[in-house]
Amino acid sequence: MGTVGTGVAKILLQTEGRHPLLNTLEIMKVGVRQIKPRSVSLPDDLYTTDLDSIIADPNIDIIIEVIGGLEPARTLILQAIENGKHIVTANKAVISRYGEEIYEAATTAGVYVMIEAAVGGGIPIIAPLKQALSVNRIQAVMGIINGTTNYILTRMQNEGGDFEEILTDAQALGYAEADPTADVDGLDAADKIAILAALAFGGRVNREDIYCEGIRKISAADISYAEKLGFVIKLLAIAKVPSQPTDTISIQARVHPTLVPTDHPLASVNDVNNAVLIEGDPIGQVMLYGPGAGEGPTASAIVSDLMAIAASPTGNRKINPLLGCTHTHTLSIVPNTEVVTRLYVRLLVKDTSGVIGKLGTCFGKHDVSLESIVQIGIQDGIVELVVVTHEVPESAFQAALTEIRQFPEVNEIPSLLHVL
Amino acid sequence: MGTVGTGVAKILLQTEGRHPLLNTLEIMKVGVRQIKPRSVSLPDDLYTTDLDSIIADPNIDIIIEVIGGLEPARTLILQAIENGKHIVTANKAVISRYGEEIYEAATTAGVYVMIEAAVGGGIPIIAPLKQALSVNRIQAVMGIINGTTNYILTRMQNEGGDFEEILTDAQALGYAEADPTADVDGLDAADKIAILAALAFGGRVNREDIYCEGIRKISAADISYAEKLGFVIKLLAIAKVPSQPTDTISIQARVHPTLVPTDHPLASVNDVNNAVLIEGDPIGQVMLYGPGAGEGPTASAIVSDLMAIAASPTGNRKINPLLGCTHTHTLSIVPNTEVVTRLYVRLLVKDTSGVIGKLGTCFGKHDVSLESIVQIGIQDGIVELVVVTHEVPESAFQAALTEIRQFPEVNEIPSLLHVL
Repeated sequence: MGTVGTGVAKILLQTEGRHPLLNTLEIMKVGVRQIKPRSVSLPDDLYTTDLDSIIADPNIDIIIEVIGGLEPARTLILQAIENGKHIVTANKAVISRYGEEIYEAATTAGVYVMIEAAVGGGIPIIAPLKQALSVNRIQAVMGIINGTTNYILTRMQNEGGDFEEILTDAQALGYAEADPTADVDGLDAADKIAILAALAFGGRVNREDIYCEGIRKISAADISYAEKLGFVIKLLAIAKVPSQPTDTISIQARVHPTLVPTDHPLASVNDVNNAVLIEGDPIGQVMLYGPGAGEGPTASAIVSDLMAIAASPTGNRKINPLLGCTHTHTLSIVPNTEVVTRLYVRLLVKDTSGVIGKLGTCFGKHDVSLESIVQIGIQDGIVELVVVTHEVPESAFQAALTEIRQFPEVNEIPSLLHVL
Repeated sequence: MGTVGTGVAKILLQTEGRHPLLNTLEIMKVGVRQIKPRSVSLPDDLYTTDLDSIIADPNIDIIIEVIGGLEPARTLILQAIENGKHIVTANKAVISRYGEEIYEAATTAGVYVMIEAAVGGGIPIIAPLKQALSVNRIQAVMGIINGTTNYILTRMQNEGGDFEEILTDAQALGYAEADPTADVDGLDAADKIAILAALAFGGRVNREDIYCEGIRKISAADISYAEKLGFVIKLLAIAKVPSQPTDTISIQARVHPTLVPTDHPLASVNDVNNAVLIEGDPIGQVMLYGPGAGEGPTASAIVSDLMAIAASPTGNRKINPLLGCTHTHTLSIVPNTEVVTRLYVRLLVKDTSGVIGKLGTCFGKHDVSLESIVQIGIQDGIVELVVVTHEVPESAFQAALTEIRQFPEVNEIPSLLHVL
């Protein structure tokens, strides 16, 4: 009965104007850390601090898990599944790490594990990926799936401020946690893209294989230069199949700050909003956009999962193939160095003639095709250059950069970012 | 086996990399106007020009209707339902006009009538409205749901051209039909918003009650002035509940060119793309965006409906409550004059002192609260003024305008548009 649980109870207690199927759902027990007055009116005897008594109760069909964190959430989920309960959870950390174990148990028990609330808050994304969009061959699923970092980057862009000051303000306003690590270092987004990739590409994803880079190093200068070049900087989570088909099914899966062209649909997703772009054959590109967190949106997602279970009566352990999990293999993830991508690098070099030519020649030697080298500014004999590449193997780019770092003209390489 | 039918066949004939449930679907017959070579490879004996033989075939479970138009589509759909077949259709004209008759027949027969492809091409919008989003109390569903007019308006905006010339070019390029009436006069969008409103607000909508205004009168001047004021002009279809609750369930439902603030999510939906924004309690705003038409997207939507039926086995006329239709009453539509909205009006007035004051006073007398009166230009003693109101009853605004038309200073009122 925290933020999300309260939101769920509010919907279930006031069903007028909502889908009539909600009237078939009844709140049987509410597990709490502490018995105390609550803002929703439920009979006192529904509350209990004994979570085991809930998952053992034979009158309960569905368990909603909104505890968060890895334990005791994982153990309780597994125990509840063993007891034949369906699970509805918002817990991306548990699902991205223990999804295999949990879904195998669910398949054996013939129950559903529903996770609409785990990614994108209220945005219907899990159900469309499992259902409507799954008739396509998915080529990419990518998006802005962490509200805190999007809030910080939007404010950095609008105000021209630097990361640290805006993070501090965001913490004061409640948009960022006291320990912001999971958000600003991209770990939360990596949990979520692991889940989306598994659904999009029909195989399990090893969470640890996902390349993950946060937004701590983004400077006001980079945001301003990006803008001049026609980009905004967003923390994107990206999972895609390589454009060149390979023998084995291997995908890219990564989280990093990314220069997004201003006319791209993801560029105008601001503040705490989330958006997920799905690219498939033959559908093309669709984007699902909305509030990525908060009581109301997350509760909406959880109740939609409850309703989907209510509409899919199970029996003899037969489950609806559009709600269950059909994965039986693990997808391999392309190592980040083998990824082919566009890149942006900012360099501070001495103002000597021929330095742009020398850089261009070095990139060319490593087969790194450039889109532009732009001189952004000059101060005290130091020239600031921004280089944007075409799609190139990241390994070739890094090889060129290793060489360039040794150039006597190169003072510093303050930033290196991916470009969509 | 036209554009969309071909797209459907391509998906069903190449199921690798798609949801495994597609392998349970088999193409039994293909109704065509004429037996001739086709671009997909199906056995010759599947093709027939005898549509009645298809809907009478006891081995066929699902009929895909992509004929378009009112007849014979309507009669064939009803006949097929009577024969116990499920229907998947992209036909917004038939569903928006004969939905009541068709869904009553389907309920009696215990079959599904699935319409994902009827609105928004490939965008999953029908299923989320019926399912995930229906746990919310929906306050508004609105969007850009006609690709042709959005393509024309986007080009008018980018090129500064006038409607007629860009329409002609769009026709030459295949983006507009030879007879563009259904698109440019807003009729197609009205069909679609009738369908979305029925799903969002849980009642039938009388298609004829929907106010409908197309884009023929939009000039390059209006687009340019709108831009200066921070708006883009989009053809929006809007269905919403009044902000002031009323005794009876009555909704607004209308289609008209609309000034959309440039920072609104719908403002950056360009070209032939569609987007639908849903506002609900407690979810807030979500937007679903993607290609509004075309072989691939529409086929994706149709096959997703086929799969949803395949995953929901029926028996004893019991159907899945999240796929069936639960409407039993008709929603009343607020007359357009009673709508409360923001408005934009452009006037040409004689350059005499006090004319802005006189206009302001007249609007004030009719309780029309103004956001701005801006002088846009002056030429040959004629001043061009643009007035933007706050939310006002449209009737009050029209009363003020009737009076203003009689002012000796007012030469002409070339445009009157709604503002989001």
